[in-house]
Amino acid sequence: MTFLVLFGGSSFEHEISIVSAITLKDKIKKNNLKFLFIDKYRDFYLIEKEDMKSKYFASGEYKKAVKLEIKKGGFFYKKGLLKKEEKVDFDVAINLVHGRDGEDGKIPGMLEFFKIKAITPNTEASAISYNKVLTKAYAREIGVEIIDYEIINSPKTKFDFPIIVKPARLGSSIGVSIAKNQDELNYAFDVASEFDDLIIVEPFIEGINEYNLAGFLADEEYIFSKIEKVEKKDYLDFEKKYLDFSRKNMTLKNIDQNIELKIKENFTKIYNTIFKNALIRCDFFEKDGIIYLNEINPIPGSLANYLFDDFENKLELLADSVTLEEDIVIDYQYINKIQMAKGK
Amino acid sequence: MTFLVLFGGSSFEHEISIVSAITLKDKIKKNNLKFLFIDKYRDFYLIEKEDMKSKYFASGEYKKAVKLEIKKGGFFYKKGLLKKEEKVDFDVAINLVHGRDGEDGKIPGMLEFFKIKAITPNTEASAISYNKVLTKAYAREIGVEIIDYEIINSPKTKFDFPIIVKPARLGSSIGVSIAKNQDELNYAFDVASEFDDLIIVEPFIEGINEYNLAGFLADEEYIFSKIEKVEKKDYLDFEKKYLDFSRKNMTLKNIDQNIELKIKENFTKIYNTIFKNALIRCDFFEKDGIIYLNEINPIPGSLANYLFDDFENKLELLADSVTLEEDIVIDYQYINKIQMAKGK
Repeated sequence: MTFLVLFGGSSFEHEISIVSAITLKDKIKKNNLKFLFIDKYRDFYLIEKEDMKSKYFASGEYKKAVKLEIKKGGFFYKKGLLKKEEKVDFDVAINLVHGRDGEDGKIPGMLEFFKIKAITPNTEASAISYNKVLTKAYAREIGVEIIDYEIINSPKTKFDFPIIVKPARLGSSIGVSIAKNQDELNYAFDVASEFDDLIIVEPFIEGINEYNLAGFLADEEYIFSKIEKVEKKDYLDFEKKYLDFSRKNMTLKNIDQNIELKIKENFTKIYNTIFKNALIRCDFFEKDGIIYLNEINPIPGSLANYLFDDFENKLELLADSVTLEEDIVIDYQYINKIQMAKGK
Repeated sequence: MTFLVLFGGSSFEHEISIVSAITLKDKIKKNNLKFLFIDKYRDFYLIEKEDMKSKYFASGEYKKAVKLEIKKGGFFYKKGLLKKEEKVDFDVAINLVHGRDGEDGKIPGMLEFFKIKAITPNTEASAISYNKVLTKAYAREIGVEIIDYEIINSPKTKFDFPIIVKPARLGSSIGVSIAKNQDELNYAFDVASEFDDLIIVEPFIEGINEYNLAGFLADEEYIFSKIEKVEKKDYLDFEKKYLDFSRKNMTLKNIDQNIELKIKENFTKIYNTIFKNALIRCDFFEKDGIIYLNEINPIPGSLANYLFDDFENKLELLADSVTLEEDIVIDYQYINKIQMAKGK
């Protein structure tokens, strides 16, 4: 099977996406990989495997690569003096554009519109996971617990300090701060405002456990990763997270069976049919045996390969089960009826 | 100003969209109008104004029109023997693709990705209004009342009959039924299941009033339409709705001032910044002075022109205030930092 990995994008996580794609390259051994880079201007380039080095992009060298266009059925380029149109040959695309463009529904929408098979959240799944207010609204609707929160329009909150201040719409931990007092809230509010006009506040709960679980639905069966218990000294910042998914030797501690069961049950409630075609990672909190959804990551860094046993086989399973939207029969029945009525 | 009206699409409302565009044609007099038809195969055609007749599309004659492609900055076609690439000249696009493609975020995502100014809901606004479960979840989150509902996986409900059965994701009233008893629920469930795998049930409330209000935000000011009190004998069916926006002489009764105020207040809560760039129509219910959100129509038929005084001027106001996403500065700071660390 040949995968076409889309990465880059006009996103605050553009660079993360480059590192994410480079990391993924080393995890796929049996299958073919091709790479499509979306630069900050949203131009498409077909990148040779040997050019998949971060410097190639940072230096602007990528501009010498073959330029692509998206059209119905795939990605195309002009070949030779006669500029003959050729199609990039692949079986399934992988949307690895983190943050804006990739996770806000724009690239998912294009892929679906142009009938390109892809491992990606769709537009609806993107909207739900990209906006933290919608994530919480969705979770409540399907009966998954969330941490209480408040939408704020000024640096004021009903919660006692310490609190977490977050722009509603960014991935990673960009613009996220912990505020221990009013001064810190003033500053945190300004920081978050630089990234979004929708800002939320959550209480910072001491002694809460964090668990991550990745997975997907293939042929009506859930494939789960291992559950990672996240050990943190302090709140994960952007730079730490940036290097997060390149880690190689993760030791996973044994998780209490009851907790594991509850986490998986919550995952399936969330995944539903809404996240079909996507490999997602859900980040949960646990306190006193209750599981809370923290966030849904619909395109985890390097597809959270480090959490899976035999990642490549699992990825193939998902790729094989990717479906396109069904066609709609349009037969102009109504218009013909009107025409006939007029003709009378 | 020149508007480019996008209509058609791979949607159950494909034909509605054609009629919607033809109707809009007659409402725009001062400004230029161009038309872009998206056929059921999702190919793009530039349609001459004189060809804007329903028969032209139903007969397949449109296939003789100029084919277009979407790319960064707009829509393009090949001209002459040398196949020189030309750009369709317009100021603001109007997304008038009702239902799938237009209202589910796919076309909004493409327009935004390719930096095309458009009157359209964005991907997030589309997801919120396209899926009735998300509409309700969103409304609850922002403090707008909704009619109680239940997600059902089989023809069983906690509510007393009569009830309304709806596929969660379709526009118009396609697949929607009233069920007065268990037999009717069995049938209604089958009908709804043909259109979606997510089905909801609501109690049918006798004596409820329905009000429609359209509007938008331009330069931080809300522009409202008149409020329409909907007079219905029975639940609006697809065919009735189909002809709904071609009506010309609507008589609007005076609305109780207190109700009007509450409806407008709810509208602004819903519109927020999430629906920016869109002209939306919100359908509200009212009983005992309480306003409930029924649904958000982010692309009302013919943009609900019949509800506005001086529609064309209002449309210009919105068009002038349409904004594109802000660019993101990508400076490869992080990648360069890693490179430097490696060099040490």
